[in-house]
Amino acid sequence: MFYYLIDLLGTVAFAISGVMVAMNKRLDPFGIFIIGFVTALGGGTIRDVLLGISPVTWLINTTYMFVVIGTVILAIIFRSKLKYFNLSLFLFDTIGIGLYTVVGVEKGVAAGLHPIMCIALGTISACFGGVLRDILCNEIPVIFRKEIYATACILGGVSYFILTLFDIKSNIVFAIPIIVVIVVRLLAVKYKLELPTVYKK
Amino acid sequence: MFYYLIDLLGTVAFAISGVMVAMNKRLDPFGIFIIGFVTALGGGTIRDVLLGISPVTWLINTTYMFVVIGTVILAIIFRSKLKYFNLSLFLFDTIGIGLYTVVGVEKGVAAGLHPIMCIALGTISACFGGVLRDILCNEIPVIFRKEIYATACILGGVSYFILTLFDIKSNIVFAIPIIVVIVVRLLAVKYKLELPTVYKK
Amino acid sequence: MFYYLIDLLGTVAFAISGVMVAMNKRLDPFGIFIIGFVTALGGGTIRDVLLGISPVTWLINTTYMFVVIGTVILAIIFRSKLKYFNLSLFLFDTIGIGLYTVVGVEKGVAAGLHPIMCIALGTISACFGGVLRDILCNEIPVIFRKEIYATACILGGVSYFILTLFDIKSNIVFAIPIIVVIVVRLLAVKYKLELPTVYKK
Repeated sequence: MFYYLIDLLGTVAFAISGVMVAMNKRLDPFGIFIIGFVTALGGGTIRDVLLGISPVTWLINTTYMFVVIGTVILAIIFRSKLKYFNLSLFLFDTIGIGLYTVVGVEKGVAAGLHPIMCIALGTISACFGGVLRDILCNEIPVIFRKEIYATACILGGVSYFILTLFDIKSNIVFAIPIIVVIVVRLLAVKYKLELPTVYKK
Repeated sequence: MFYYLIDLLGTVAFAISGVMVAMNKRLDPFGIFIIGFVTALGGGTIRDVLLGISPVTWLINTTYMFVVIGTVILAIIFRSKLKYFNLSLFLFDTIGIGLYTVVGVEKGVAAGLHPIMCIALGTISACFGGVLRDILCNEIPVIFRKEIYATACILGGVSYFILTLFDIKSNIVFAIPIIVVIVVRLLAVKYKLELPTVYKK
Repeated sequence: MFYYLIDLLGTVAFAISGVMVAMNKRLDPFGIFIIGFVTALGGGTIRDVLLGISPVTWLINTTYMFVVIGTVILAIIFRSKLKYFNLSLFLFDTIGIGLYTVVGVEKGVAAGLHPIMCIALGTISACFGGVLRDILCNEIPVIFRKEIYATACILGGVSYFILTLFDIKSNIVFAIPIIVVIVVRLLAVKYKLELPTVYKK
């Protein structure tokens, strides 16, 4: 129940991030809704398709659709006020990618996959909604240029499997990696850490 | 049989719309074929993948592939004459999205999904071929900027579920929403209706 | 075993082609890795999703992931030396698309599909990793403008089905189309063959 609430807050934060990018591109309300939807649910959709989980989660659980519709409508109406929520949105988003990472990792574990594949699925769940958002808006995905976002997810996934080596309760194994993702990302943002770009000399 | 014919006419119209965009980008014949193919069958492919219908429809029913191949070849050969068919193509395309919408809705119903998800699947079937076309041609999808196209599909889908509330024969429940999509789109084009773009002030 | 080695060499060549495009876009190491991964494994992933093979191949067989990780790290470290390997990479890549084509064709045959669909799947396996690479890097896919790449795969696929008409051993039916793809592509590059672009006059 608690995690479900975090999940929905993450969905709200992701949808708003999509709405903001879409408004910068001066799209119409339908376009803004699609970008919000894809940002919020695209990562989990790719994860489900790769795993062969069908119909994909958001087709079965209608809550996500209603949350995205409500978020997009409110974000459009109060678009001039969104800047006052920047900090809250950043926190929701950070908590959201933490949770999405662990949910993705656990779906991989449930499918009997190798840990590195579970970490890949967790990172895809958390990050590829934003990748699809940027592709639809005709931009090179921002996480390919500002790397700490995905690195935080990878480190969270690694911590998950380190914890499973010990005799630890499953809800702690679930919670700690979320905290790892959040802490890494907060530190990265606070200290403006990013990996240098690499190009051929 | 009648609907199958409409389906194939819609496929032809979608493929030609892809060919025309691809020729504007000065692609080669292979690129033009792929864009035509993706425009015609991409929406239904995404719908099938989300639902877990596999292999996807066009892999099983070879007619679509042959229709697209034939359409692309003829469209390339007679490319200087395409302008004389603008009205026919617009009508085929409009009838096509009406039909694709209802086919998508009914696939969702068959999978036991919530009406809002069925409407989403219908809209995806009708509109996302064009979205993929625009992504492959490195453009922001046109339906995110000229919204009445997708709105017509959504209204058609809504009308489908309104009709199911009454004791109406299934072929009428199938036909009326197609007419709704067509009428909405024709009115939108005739009166140049489009929603304003939204951006942050 | 021999084919598996070719497969991995093809994966290496595809991954490096992704790394080189990504470095031209000045991405960070995570972005470079994702582009390398998608270039190497994206075509097979689309093929698996269209066929409904799940989880997709690279989630099950971890070798691909480790090969891509190793390739990307080495390619980044030795990026100033990559130009000395241009010929080897071109050869690996050419052998790779030959093999990927035939693997894709045989997966279609195994699913009981029509030959034209098997050829489509083979071509998708070989070519769509590069398509995804170019979309992620915000370019119109290069194979839509320089066509002989995909044409070689299609001709290889056609030769496969011509060979099955005769009473020929299965490993020869497997090997000859690979050679067809390689020869067509080498001739096309040697004689600078490409189809003219097509546009509306």
